Amino acid sequence: MKNIAVLGSTGSVGTQTLEVVRNNPELKVAALAAGEDASKMADQIREFRPQIAGMWSEEAARDLRQRVSDLPVRVVAGMEGLLEIAVMPESEMLVTAVVGMIGIKPTIAAIQEGKDIALANKETLVTAGHLIIPLAKEKRVAILPVDSEHSAIFQALNGESGKRIDKIWLTASGGPFRGKTRDELRQITVEDALKHPNWIMGKKITIDSSTLVNKGLEVMEAKWLFEVELDRIQVVVHPQSVIHSMVEFVDGAIMAQLGTPDMKLPIQYALFYPDRKPLEGKRLNFFELGQMTFEKPDTGTFRGLSLACEAARVGGSMPTVYNAANEMAVGLFLDRKISYLRIVELIENAMGRHQVIINPKLDEILAVESWVYEYIRGIV
Amino acid sequence: MKNIAVLGSTGSVGTQTLEVVRNNPELKVAALAAGEDASKMADQIREFRPQIAGMWSEEAARDLRQRVSDLPVRVVAGMEGLLEIAVMPESEMLVTAVVGMIGIKPTIAAIQEGKDIALANKETLVTAGHLIIPLAKEKRVAILPVDSEHSAIFQALNGESGKRIDKIWLTASGGPFRGKTRDELRQITVEDALKHPNWIMGKKITIDSSTLVNKGLEVMEAKWLFEVELDRIQVVVHPQSVIHSMVEFVDGAIMAQLGTPDMKLPIQYALFYPDRKPLEGKRLNFFELGQMTFEKPDTGTFRGLSLACEAARVGGSMPTVYNAANEMAVGLFLDRKISYLRIVELIENAMGRHQVIINPKLDEILAVESWVYEYIRGIV
Repeated sequence: MKNIAVLGSTGSVGTQTLEVVRNNPELKVAALAAGEDASKMADQIREFRPQIAGMWSEEAARDLRQRVSDLPVRVVAGMEGLLEIAVMPESEMLVTAVVGMIGIKPTIAAIQEGKDIALANKETLVTAGHLIIPLAKEKRVAILPVDSEHSAIFQALNGESGKRIDKIWLTASGGPFRGKTRDELRQITVEDALKHPNWIMGKKITIDSSTLVNKGLEVMEAKWLFEVELDRIQVVVHPQSVIHSMVEFVDGAIMAQLGTPDMKLPIQYALFYPDRKPLEGKRLNFFELGQMTFEKPDTGTFRGLSLACEAARVGGSMPTVYNAANEMAVGLFLDRKISYLRIVELIENAMGRHQVIINPKLDEILAVESWVYEYIRGIV
Repeated sequence: MKNIAVLGSTGSVGTQTLEVVRNNPELKVAALAAGEDASKMADQIREFRPQIAGMWSEEAARDLRQRVSDLPVRVVAGMEGLLEIAVMPESEMLVTAVVGMIGIKPTIAAIQEGKDIALANKETLVTAGHLIIPLAKEKRVAILPVDSEHSAIFQALNGESGKRIDKIWLTASGGPFRGKTRDELRQITVEDALKHPNWIMGKKITIDSSTLVNKGLEVMEAKWLFEVELDRIQVVVHPQSVIHSMVEFVDGAIMAQLGTPDMKLPIQYALFYPDRKPLEGKRLNFFELGQMTFEKPDTGTFRGLSLACEAARVGGSMPTVYNAANEMAVGLFLDRKISYLRIVELIENAMGRHQVIINPKLDEILAVESWVYEYIRGIV
């Protein structure tokens, strides 16, 4: 029996995590937390019976309390609630599946209490990898990646020393706009951008995939997670998304993980690591597949990727600027306040105006985030 | 420091094994054995300074003794010589790189003495897997595959339980005659058949690759090595030979090993397992590669593969018949005594005439081999 707490349980990764729990009686949910959707949360509580449930807003928490007043669940709210869930003694593992920088503090708190982390929140390592990774080592907790690319790399490394890595081949579908010119990208609408060719995901990450910002964030995350230098990470566009990523070792052997696009696989792998459990689902058929192709990413058109590498190279607080600017810009784009190409322009503007803090502390990271939001509000 | 003995040191895998030794000072050669080439063996002795050297024929052994009379090496001959080398206390690992069924006895002898086996000899497991695998388990020795496909599977399994295997995807280049009809195959000459598209190998294995008999032997070998049922092994034709083979696990994750065609990689991996050492050589470049393709094997035209599955399904002494008939037939083809298509016909004829022995002992296996040779001599 393994007890887990899930932050972001009503989102895409969260609901799929609960699907995995549903199919594995040896998993038990100690706590759930979500943003605003008290109705969905009430349903999840009825099915999975957590001890604690958290809502981001006080209002949603009040709503939830009424909905589940017949159940023995304690409803908490806000960051205080997330932190309480992160450190609760009844949970062995924290699944950080919230989107955005609100994932960082609870993740750090859970690591400090020695809990393993199933990490689906990119911002945690992108902005605070320099704090998280040393802390995880000190506390001997495992950081288990929950996205297809990093899970693929993690699986490819299974049992091998990181020192034997020569290169990481991070695969990218190229997004729905692969092959388009910058001129063609000017006209992109919210509806266009929300169509991802291979994966069904949340809105924010779907936009990030189309701009290659998601791949940029993954490069930064891989750097921390696998402790490799930036120039050992090579993004390769592989439109079929069959190879989920690869590790090239010092002897030239490349280990790859392949499969159909199903987030439940990396989720389940993280929850049971180092064991593997059966998982139903569509299987990859090489005869139907026929071919896989590979090409260089077009970093001239999709500047989100090259800016990410620049932010990672500068380091310090610059990845926070990259990430926060993107988070805000994507929100503005989804609200139809800015054009598609403006997303990456805003990242570039913010990076250009930022005074880098080397080795920032957590409060400095959060202050930089606020500065970025203010800065973008000022110019849009 | 690791001491190894190499059987078949002047052949393709043998010389590449010595290249790996040359580049790794922590490897030492305790003994070498070869067939007839006393001149090449003398050179190897001068460079690698083994304590014992074996030649298959008494005549070659006498020749060798004269060539290295100034060196402190003992020259032995025949099967007795191979067996002495297999069990010598100074060696920790036996590299079985001889071609043909003469590899079986020394391999068994080495396992009985608790030595790990780097196995490049297919016949050992194909004909005597039912004896070898239980013995290796009993003596707790590792059988480390030294060919690109089985090494790929072994690497893909690294650290994972065999019970988690759902399927093995054994890749095949399809050989130089992929896409040809049976009618076109009638005209194939020895020269045509010796051109392999991707790998430089010995003559016998090059012919076997062209008939897909090699893939058939690999299916049988994989069955023993990874203890999977026959219908969990799927051959997939992948003409670029970039993916060296794959394992599909119960959760749908597929782990693949990819690389350039270089036998030194699986050799070195076996010699140092579970460690990985740097290896110089051409690296795989996905941007140059561009694409990989996959298709079903044409078992109607290349009946060598379907006959192998049939032999494996029957089991007992039938794989020995398959293997011995092929060995003899390929020899006859290389000597220009029979046509290309006759190779597989002779396998089929021999299998059709054989009375299966269930669970044959080693002397029975060798008797079946002799019967096959006699039978083929009788009809050609």
